[in-house]
This record gives sequence, C-alpha cells and structure tokens, in this order.
Amino acid sequence: MYRCIENGSVTSAKGFKAAGIFCGIKRKKKDLALIYSELPCTTAGTFTLNKVKAAPLLISKEVIKKNNFTKAVLVNSGNANACTGDEGYNDALDMQKWCAEKLNISQDEVLISSTGVIGQKMPMEKIKSGIDEIVNHLSEHGGFNAAEAIMTTDTKIKSFAFEVKLKKSSVTIGGICKGSGMIMPNMATMLGFLSTDAAIEKDLLSELLLNSVQKSFNKISVDGETSTNDMVVILANGASGISIEKNSEDMQIFQEALTAISIEMAKSIVSDGEGATKLVTVNVKNAKSKLDADLVGKSIANSSLVKTAIYGADANWGRILSAAGQSGADFDPANVSIHFNDLPVLLPEYTLALDEEKASKILSQSEFSINIDLGSGSEDCTWWTCDLTEEYVRINADYRT
Amino acid sequence: MYRCIENGSVTSAKGFKAAGIFCGIKRKKKDLALIYSELPCTTAGTFTLNKVKAAPLLISKEVIKKNNFTKAVLVNSGNANACTGDEGYNDALDMQKWCAEKLNISQDEVLISSTGVIGQKMPMEKIKSGIDEIVNHLSEHGGFNAAEAIMTTDTKIKSFAFEVKLKKSSVTIGGICKGSGMIMPNMATMLGFLSTDAAIEKDLLSELLLNSVQKSFNKISVDGETSTNDMVVILANGASGISIEKNSEDMQIFQEALTAISIEMAKSIVSDGEGATKLVTVNVKNAKSKLDADLVGKSIANSSLVKTAIYGADANWGRILSAAGQSGADFDPANVSIHFNDLPVLLPEYTLALDEEKASKILSQSEFSINIDLGSGSEDCTWWTCDLTEEYVRINADYRT
Repeated sequence: MYRCIENGSVTSAKGFKAAGIFCGIKRKKKDLALIYSELPCTTAGTFTLNKVKAAPLLISKEVIKKNNFTKAVLVNSGNANACTGDEGYNDALDMQKWCAEKLNISQDEVLISSTGVIGQKMPMEKIKSGIDEIVNHLSEHGGFNAAEAIMTTDTKIKSFAFEVKLKKSSVTIGGICKGSGMIMPNMATMLGFLSTDAAIEKDLLSELLLNSVQKSFNKISVDGETSTNDMVVILANGASGISIEKNSEDMQIFQEALTAISIEMAKSIVSDGEGATKLVTVNVKNAKSKLDADLVGKSIANSSLVKTAIYGADANWGRILSAAGQSGADFDPANVSIHFNDLPVLLPEYTLALDEEKASKILSQSEFSINIDLGSGSEDCTWWTCDLTEEYVRINADYRT
Repeated sequence: MYRCIENGSVTSAKGFKAAGIFCGIKRKKKDLALIYSELPCTTAGTFTLNKVKAAPLLISKEVIKKNNFTKAVLVNSGNANACTGDEGYNDALDMQKWCAEKLNISQDEVLISSTGVIGQKMPMEKIKSGIDEIVNHLSEHGGFNAAEAIMTTDTKIKSFAFEVKLKKSSVTIGGICKGSGMIMPNMATMLGFLSTDAAIEKDLLSELLLNSVQKSFNKISVDGETSTNDMVVILANGASGISIEKNSEDMQIFQEALTAISIEMAKSIVSDGEGATKLVTVNVKNAKSKLDADLVGKSIANSSLVKTAIYGADANWGRILSAAGQSGADFDPANVSIHFNDLPVLLPEYTLALDEEKASKILSQSEFSINIDLGSGSEDCTWWTCDLTEEYVRINADYRT
C-alpha cells in the first residue's frame, strides 16, 4: 500500500519547497534550512522529554499548541540555542519573526528548530543574513539541500519519500532527519521533519504521528542520551486534494505508511550513529506486557557491553541476557531463547546452541537482528541500535574543539 | 576516628586468613581465592538486582539468610557460573561442599562467589584440585594473594584496611574487591569482601553494611551495567574481643569507618574502570529530594557524552546539564550552577562563567570533581565515575576471545 520513492525528500509531497544554505554558524558546511508550503498546513509534533529544553523547541511547541496552521520550518545546525536563558529565547523569537517577515507570513506560522553545541549565544547577524538569502533559494527540489543543512556529526544525508496508495487515489509523505549522537528513547532525540500533501485534521494528524513515533524514533538508541533540542514534526498541506478521514480505511493505510517511513528515517539515524559500523534490529518476543517488552529492548539497545560485543563480532549472548535481566522487566531467565537472525544461540533451560563460527559470521555483517524470546507472555516490540566503537569515543571526546 | 592501615587487607582484621592461587580456570593468572576465619562470623551481604542471578550468588544469599554464622568465602575468577542452569547450580553446590570438607567445617558455613565469563560450564576438576591446594596456603598475610585472585580485567590489586578507634578500644576492618566492567548502581555490581574483628550481631551488621553500600558501591558507574554475579559481604568474627552494640556511640564510629573504607574500595573500582584514565567525583547539591539528587548523580555518572567529554578534557557543561535534565529529577534548569572543583562554570540564570583554559587544566587532571547545585531544595549526594575511552571499547570488543 506504499512504495519508497527514489531520491525522495520532504519536497516530494506536492506544494512543499525547501532550501539549505551556509550562513556562517559552522565553519564551512551548510547550516541553515527552510521548509515552506504556500498552502497552510495542519501540524503535529513530538518533543524531547529532557527537563532542559532549548528555546526554539519551547517556541515551536507553543506554535503547534496554539495555532491551527503553520507554513514554514526554519532550522539551523551548529548551535543548539539551549541553556542560553532569556537572551536565547529572545534570539529564537527574533529568528521566527525575521523569517516570517521575509516569507510575508504571520510569525506564528513559523516553526523553528536548532541543533548543535549547547550553551552558546546565537550569531544573530549571520542568521538574519542567512534568512534574507535562504528565502530566495526555496525550490521544489530543495529537500536534499535542507537535509544537508540540518546535519551535525551525521555523515550521510537522510532524506526519504513514500507514495501512499490509498483506496482510490494516492498521496505522498516526505521526510528529512538528522542524528547522530544523543540518540535515545523518550522522543525525540533527533530532528525529523515530515511533510504530506494529504489533508488531515490537526488532532488526527497528531494521533497518527504519535503512533508512528512510538514505533520508530522512540525505539532507537545510539548512546542512551536524550537531547535538549530534538523534535519530530509533520506538516500536512492538503495539496493533493485528498483528505484522510478518521477511522477510514485510508487512515489505516496512511498510518502504516507513516510508520514505515518513520522507521526508515529512524533506522537511517541509527546506522549513521556516531562511529557506528553496524545496524542491529532487536526483536523482543513473548514478554508479559508491552512495557516489559519495551524495557528489555531498550536495555539491550542501550547496553555498552552488548554494543561493544557487536562491534567485536563476539557472540557474547551472556551480555544480552544480562542486559535483559537488568531492565526491570519481569521474566524467568530459564525460559529465554536468543537467536542471531535465524541462528539459535541460547535455548530455554540455558541450553547452549551456539555455533561460534556461524554466529561470528552473522555478527560481522553490517546489518543483522538479535531475537530474544522471553517465553513469558505474548507482547512483542522492536528496537534498533548500533555498535559502540572507538570512533564514537573519538568523535565525542573533542566535539566542541 | 579511623585511619587507613598501610598495605592493609582482608586479613588485617584479627583471626582472618586468606589465600589466592592459580588453579587453571584462567590461562595463567591467579583465579581462586579463599578467606577463612576459625572463629564463626556473623555475616551480612548485598546482592545484584539483575533478574539473571548466577548460581553461587543464589547459594550465598541463602546461606546468609538461613545461618547465623559462616567461616569461609570461596571465590573464583575467570568463569561467572551464570546462565548455566541446573548443572551450574549443582557445580556451585559441589564447590561449596568440597571446600567445607577440606576446611572441616559445615557446608552452610561456606559462602561462594564467581566472576568472569557468563554461560560457560565450570571446570570442576580444576576447581576441586584448586580447593585441595588452596586450604594449605591460608595465611594471615594472604589478603593480597586473595585480592589478586579475584581480579578479571582489573589492572590493580584492590586491598584495604582501616583501624577504627572506638571510645575505649579499637577494632579493624579489612576489605578486598574487584571491578572493573559491568559497574553500575543497584548493588552490587562488583565483588567486595569485608572482614572485621569486632563482634556485631547479625541484624545490626546487615544494617551497617546496607548503609555503607548505599553511599559507596551503589554510587559508582563505569558503564551503566549491572552484573549477574556481584555481591558485597562482610564477616565479623569478634576476634578483637570488642562488641559493637546497637545505638551506641561506638556503633556510630564503626558505621563511619565502614562507610569510609567502602567508599575507598568503590573509588578504587571506578579509577581502575575498564579503560579509565580519570576518577571523577560528582557532587549533587540542593536537590528537592534524596531521590532527585540520586537520579541526577546517576544520570551524569552514566552519561556516555559526559564521560567522553571528560576523556577529551572538554569543558562541555551543556552535556552535564542535559544529563541532569534527562534524569527524571524535578528541578528548574535556570537555577542550576556547575563548578569543576572550585571553578565556576555555569551560574544560575544560565550565566556563563567559563574560563576555558582553567577548566581544561582541571579536566586534564586524573582526579577532580564536578559539582552541580540544583538550587531546588536541600538534599545532596555523591557519585563517582570515570571517563569513557577508546580502550574501554577495545577491552570489551574482544573480552571472550
């Protein structure tokens, strides 16, 4: 009911333009992005649960809460505008206002977002000049430039689009996102911007987004950190002329597609996690409760010892079981079985089934799955994680310098 | 009221003997330790909260629960006897029984403990021969050999003793311990064996140990992992002829000394954490509640981003504040101040006070403190952590191989 559009982006959905430029916040690379729809968009968002929230995030949250429609998302990288106090808050408001003026729209139609170093003053002159310039670059082909401009330590541009085949017609969902450190549960430890040309009423859009995020962006871990800045938003401008109604069959199809593209985006963040060389899917099966399944998946995905063992292609299933054991979930360890892809490693009653050579072959691949069956109930969930490497340490030991 | 005894060990307390030998579980290094008191000892212990519990731990827990006295602790390194099912449980019972026979004491007077790789069968013939041999090596000077024999990836022998100056007399507390990966909160993510020649009734001993552990072994983090095997036990044999009574002044003094030696032991584990080059004290001040203080300390001590910044001597206070923010504790970020040792870094209202050069000098030292004042109440706590280095990744990427 949906298919991936090659070279798709946030501008693949009708009526969306975007741009990405260099304005001088970073040393060389693109650092300012703008997404724009002339048609007003219903908008939904999810935001970090970190107690410390960056100024632009507070403003965007308020915009979505108070307004029925937005038209633009302005994003800078290189500076998070977090922990910057009243001055930072006013800077964020200024960015929003300046952008609205240049686009000739209302200030509360502009969402803003920042990512980068915490606790540094925004270089407002550079940003204002950047805004003056970026509005002239808006284009229906600008999604990739925007995706490039929101990157920090990301090594790959993250840009996607899906065509959603509804019962009688089709709509498009596009998205760009960035990681790649400070990636952990609890929404929304990264930036994700989704667009669709379907028309979707605001409350329903919010519901659809939350359902998708719960199965995608909230199920990934690079380093167990929840950032101060991160958010996922979706804008729906109705440019396709197709409306998605609550409880319709089309709504189901759209939900599936939105979840699917969100999972693709989330996986792209994990596989480009700082220093990561491997993308690992953690499937938890037969937990007593949804919460237990989630706790086990999260604990395995976050375990430094599991992640270093993955890096070393070491079939150290004991660390996987131990990570499950420290998750707080209720299960009987004697009932647990563990597979790497389809290869049995541990069977119930601590029965070892480990073929070291075959296991090591699987763990040496750049993508594989760890499947843990708790044998304690019928609830499942899926997490995605990456390996922990020396390169992660190197990147983060001198991020600011 | 207490002083550190130079070259002290678990055998510094009167009436305790110990030994450490190589019996063939590891390739070359000592791997079997025995601590023994001819006098019966009241005994207390704290054990891992990991749902997956190793066989020897289950047995030792039961011994302490059911018996008023013990006389010996047998410990092997190189094999954790965890996730080994019924066979592993029977092996652990056999170890206990064999050791009791050789010491000519009752089986339920022997505590057993294991550390090392998870999920492998115990080499029982080697262990039995080892037990035959080790009883002949018991000595009042054997504490260091025992401390060496419980090491896994530890690079330093961890052995301590304190003389406790009571009102009219003095007693001794000795202790050995090992780390150095899988170190995290929630008791007792390592092995610690304490001895004292004071006479202390069992329930009181348990209370004193729990109070100490709460402020020491439960406040350290190397990698956020809770192991399947770990425990801290204390044996009190009364050989000094001095009795510590509940609610006495001597009890207060003993409690302080026990906490102090436990903190020394815990710190020795952190500073010898896998790949660690720095020991960092995290002081949390003025939290709303004890729990909030603990959550913030734990979150900072566990944060990969804080730990890599420490490694890089990068004064990235934003990561510290962000780690506090994701802890779940209730506080207003605008009230927070952060100091490195006495150097102000962040003052309330996000007022930057950072002298990068001075900060970097402090962060380059092998020991310093991060002091975070939440400005939200009056509860404090202290955690200890280390840096996260490339070496941690290397050690854990090929631990088994």
